[in-house]
Amino acid sequence: MSESYWLWYPGDFELYHAMKQNFSRVERGCAWPAFWKSAGFRNRVAFRRAYELDAETGFTVYGVTGAQGYVQVDDAKHPFGEKISVCPGSHTISVHIACIGCVPSIYVEGDVICSGAGWMADDFDGDPVPAAYNRYFTDPKWDPSEWKYAEKEYRPIAVESVRGGALYTFETELTAALKITWDKAKVEAPRVYLGESRAEALDTKNCYYHCQPDRNTGLCPRQALRYAFLPGCAPEECEVTAIHQYIDIPVKAAFSCDDEELNRIFAVSAHTFMLCSGAFFLDGIKRDKWIWGGDAYQSLLVNRYLTGDREIEKRTLIALRGGDPVTTHVNTILDYSLLWILSVDAYFESYGDREFVDFLWPKMESLMALCFSQREEHGFVVGRKRDWVFVDWADFDRDGPLCAEQMLLCEACRVMEKLAPRERKAFYAKERESLLCQIERFFWDEAQGAYVDSFTSGKRHVTRHANIFAILFGIADEARQRLLARSVLFNSAVPAITTPYFRFFELEALCRLGYLKEVLAEIKAYWCGMLKLGAVTFWEEYDPKKPLKAQYEMYGDPFGKSLCHAWAASPIYLLARYFAGVRALTPGGETYEAKPQTAFFEHLDCRFPMGEKQLHIQLNQGMLREELTEQGKGLTP
Amino acid sequence: MSESYWLWYPGDFELYHAMKQNFSRVERGCAWPAFWKSAGFRNRVAFRRAYELDAETGFTVYGVTGAQGYVQVDDAKHPFGEKISVCPGSHTISVHIACIGCVPSIYVEGDVICSGAGWMADDFDGDPVPAAYNRYFTDPKWDPSEWKYAEKEYRPIAVESVRGGALYTFETELTAALKITWDKAKVEAPRVYLGESRAEALDTKNCYYHCQPDRNTGLCPRQALRYAFLPGCAPEECEVTAIHQYIDIPVKAAFSCDDEELNRIFAVSAHTFMLCSGAFFLDGIKRDKWIWGGDAYQSLLVNRYLTGDREIEKRTLIALRGGDPVTTHVNTILDYSLLWILSVDAYFESYGDREFVDFLWPKMESLMALCFSQREEHGFVVGRKRDWVFVDWADFDRDGPLCAEQMLLCEACRVMEKLAPRERKAFYAKERESLLCQIERFFWDEAQGAYVDSFTSGKRHVTRHANIFAILFGIADEARQRLLARSVLFNSAVPAITTPYFRFFELEALCRLGYLKEVLAEIKAYWCGMLKLGAVTFWEEYDPKKPLKAQYEMYGDPFGKSLCHAWAASPIYLLARYFAGVRALTPGGETYEAKPQTAFFEHLDCRFPMGEKQLHIQLNQGMLREELTEQGKGLTP
Repeated sequence: MSESYWLWYPGDFELYHAMKQNFSRVERGCAWPAFWKSAGFRNRVAFRRAYELDAETGFTVYGVTGAQGYVQVDDAKHPFGEKISVCPGSHTISVHIACIGCVPSIYVEGDVICSGAGWMADDFDGDPVPAAYNRYFTDPKWDPSEWKYAEKEYRPIAVESVRGGALYTFETELTAALKITWDKAKVEAPRVYLGESRAEALDTKNCYYHCQPDRNTGLCPRQALRYAFLPGCAPEECEVTAIHQYIDIPVKAAFSCDDEELNRIFAVSAHTFMLCSGAFFLDGIKRDKWIWGGDAYQSLLVNRYLTGDREIEKRTLIALRGGDPVTTHVNTILDYSLLWILSVDAYFESYGDREFVDFLWPKMESLMALCFSQREEHGFVVGRKRDWVFVDWADFDRDGPLCAEQMLLCEACRVMEKLAPRERKAFYAKERESLLCQIERFFWDEAQGAYVDSFTSGKRHVTRHANIFAILFGIADEARQRLLARSVLFNSAVPAITTPYFRFFELEALCRLGYLKEVLAEIKAYWCGMLKLGAVTFWEEYDPKKPLKAQYEMYGDPFGKSLCHAWAASPIYLLARYFAGVRALTPGGETYEAKPQTAFFEHLDCRFPMGEKQLHIQLNQGMLREELTEQGKGLTP
Repeated sequence: MSESYWLWYPGDFELYHAMKQNFSRVERGCAWPAFWKSAGFRNRVAFRRAYELDAETGFTVYGVTGAQGYVQVDDAKHPFGEKISVCPGSHTISVHIACIGCVPSIYVEGDVICSGAGWMADDFDGDPVPAAYNRYFTDPKWDPSEWKYAEKEYRPIAVESVRGGALYTFETELTAALKITWDKAKVEAPRVYLGESRAEALDTKNCYYHCQPDRNTGLCPRQALRYAFLPGCAPEECEVTAIHQYIDIPVKAAFSCDDEELNRIFAVSAHTFMLCSGAFFLDGIKRDKWIWGGDAYQSLLVNRYLTGDREIEKRTLIALRGGDPVTTHVNTILDYSLLWILSVDAYFESYGDREFVDFLWPKMESLMALCFSQREEHGFVVGRKRDWVFVDWADFDRDGPLCAEQMLLCEACRVMEKLAPRERKAFYAKERESLLCQIERFFWDEAQGAYVDSFTSGKRHVTRHANIFAILFGIADEARQRLLARSVLFNSAVPAITTPYFRFFELEALCRLGYLKEVLAEIKAYWCGMLKLGAVTFWEEYDPKKPLKAQYEMYGDPFGKSLCHAWAASPIYLLARYFAGVRALTPGGETYEAKPQTAFFEHLDCRFPMGEKQLHIQLNQGMLREELTEQGKGLTP
């Protein structure tokens, strides 16, 4: 048999699995599906291919679970699952499939006639397009209705008797199905309380998840956990194993320098990030388990330097953007729509993949058209009644248009101009130009040397956010960027950023302005702070002033904080990009630059993905060695 | 407990079940899902309602099978299936639900807090709208993922030993699950061959369906059948019962006159029609089991006089029209899109239901916009590359725009003008006027006294279809209508209509022109012809010149013809409308007219739905008695 792949209509696999992901959150017995419009997938598709056969050959077609359909060879119909023989000559094969409950997918098994490149998909609407597939679904017995996870078993590193029960501790947080053996004569099935922290698992009232193992298999549902508490159970009575279930995405980066703390920060960041990276980039593994556009933008930047796996980026971009016509914003958030546009650019810079950008282009245009449709009389974008204008958890002056949103719109116009086909470039260039003028006229405050949040309220309130964007997106020129550093970034009168999400943008702005020493100190202080409190994965938020006991609360919930959160992995990007000094000079990394900050390192030995390849740099007492190797070679994650 | 209903977002129930219906066709072991774009349903919805409670009360929320969600009472979350107590005072209840595999629906059970009118549905896109529900789904244990069929058991009327097997004959065709008992020691499970005709069941190679009963339950899948053949089985060895499964829609019509043949035609038409009427109007019960727009238009006209059940009409209209943006035609057929517009008018005339027309109005406008977008330089609508320009199975001169399509577009403009809100009326009136001028200028052939199919080919070919439409839609004035009767309808040089589908339009045109004697003769000849061949349901097509044995073939398939086909029930409409002379004078039948054709009947005793009521007319030797009764009273189907 030749290698075959499950086929589907491009984009539908992602929309289906995005729903599964966004509907999978469960908290304290309540399922909590994401609160935004969810785009469905096509339910009726045909796949077609013509063959010119030299010899008789046979093939069998399988449909995804629950599908209806048939195989047509020239004029004859055959059911799924039946071996079909075809004589030599020219033949047209079409596979018709319909499925309500999951993405209609087919698998064609055969020596010559098999599914993969070359098949066209037809949705009975537009012209046929090449069918899509991926490397994870190559087994006829494992169809795309469910991801098949790779598994790794973890035994507890500690078992203790506490509060009349048994507490099992694992070396790290996992997304695992617990497998429990217990005395079935004694209890029907033990109740299990899970925790990211020891405190959470022991708090049977407030912990997020509790479950009972299936009596036959002993398995609990797949959930995030590091601790498992079984009340009323003596440690010797039960055996608890965690079967970590993950999607295998090889890490292609390693970071080693003379500062062990930095090495540890990089390693724990990588571990945190990989736990949050599965079918899609997730925010966190305990909470929300949703695909958020703002988080994903930062994940794309991190992933560029960690796995270089473009497939998870493509899946995430498709999932976030949803369907057309687009009537709501990404996750309902106006700025996340604009960050999605920036994410496409981040993807393009990483892989130089024009084909995928072309695939997305109509969706980029329609999303920008939605944003443009929401402009007020000065040309500034504003939220509609049901839109969420977020930017960050911060006290903005939200009267009238918000400056940070205009900065994002301006950058989105730059990306659109850059990625547009020739005939659309001038349009976006012109939009950007006039927006720049208007921002300068209405939001720039010469007296304060800063952009203000709002020009309509008269309060002239300054926050860091718009000013950080002005630096990152080059909206302020170099002189003004230096001014902004003084008047905003190093001005303690301007309220500090409180979220690691936006702190990333601030740190990158500081890197751009050359404040590397300050950034390095901050990375060490903030992330080592977590490590010193025993973190094995990095947290959604960390307040150095609070004791460990007070760290778990967030959003008014005693265990509301996610202790394994993707946006906390941003040191990977900052260390790789600004300290190891590695970056592509052309999209996809055909040409690149490696300029480590020799001032900070005696020794440096790092590997990072560079497009499809891997770049290995070694710095020893000022001497730099570089080596570019093919993908897969010499990986030491 | 108060009576509760399952709730869903308006329209989604219909789109979900339309897919189930259109994907349910199976022929000779091959599933054959309908070959057009299928509109999906929303997967993430919230339902909300505020309550002002005098006393403490409890309620429980259930979600449809496979759904994820939670109940929020003020700020507290609760899982589905848990009894929730609420104290007196003001409360806001919201139910969040997500479901990939079927339409997200909820059921709220409680004395005071229960699901039905008053709940709003939110799809996280547009403004909330009143939630939808129907009378069939009121049981918490029976959710809307599956229709719960009413059942009636039929025992065979004949069992015979033939060709080494046993043949079971039922009194009529059914959509039934066979229940079989057999000697399980002898065979694992017998193979069963089904037929609409005896010949089909006995032809184990060419019959459409064969199946095996489930070994435990003895049940076969629900299928159309009148005959069941079990090869290798002696009649005394097996017991076969047919469990007819149907959706209970009460018939509210009866027809009795002094002509027993007409009474029989009406009764068999009614029986045929009801078999084809379930969740939706289907074309036939063996084949295609699909929802076709042209067939449905005629079914709406028949149903007006048979059940007066507006719900099946609403379901069918929603199912046919699908989603927005509309990019493909109803069933891919240009004329079926236009007939859908006419169907909305037929619905409005029957029930005067402005609210439902308002619900559909945006979909009417967008569908007309699609049709208008396909006009060539003269303003005539033409098919696009992937459109099907059907009209009828006939030899049209298909060069350039087809006249019959323009007639339909013209009538669609009239309907749009009539049903439009005030500010849109002029638009459609003007479109219709200019189209009328262009039809006259390009398609009218003065020499032939007929409209020609094509003005571009130069062939000046005349078929009946456009000319019939010109009469039905009043495009030809009265004088010209009389001319068309001579030059086309009674002109044997113009090829005869071959399908009962279009024959219906022709017979109605003849009725309009007063040729009732001719129509009555035709009804008797054609439909009695089938009865004389032993038909117990009316057929998709009937050629009086062929012997019984040759009647089953169609589309090149020996048993391709459907022997229970909705469009063959059109005598109901013709007899009621033109012979019993019953029609509404205002939409919904507030005022009506009953003018039986006394020339044809000595005695007539008929009941027909009239809006929500029922009209009973009795004609005895020229004396007419009319009685209008409330729905449900005095029904004698």
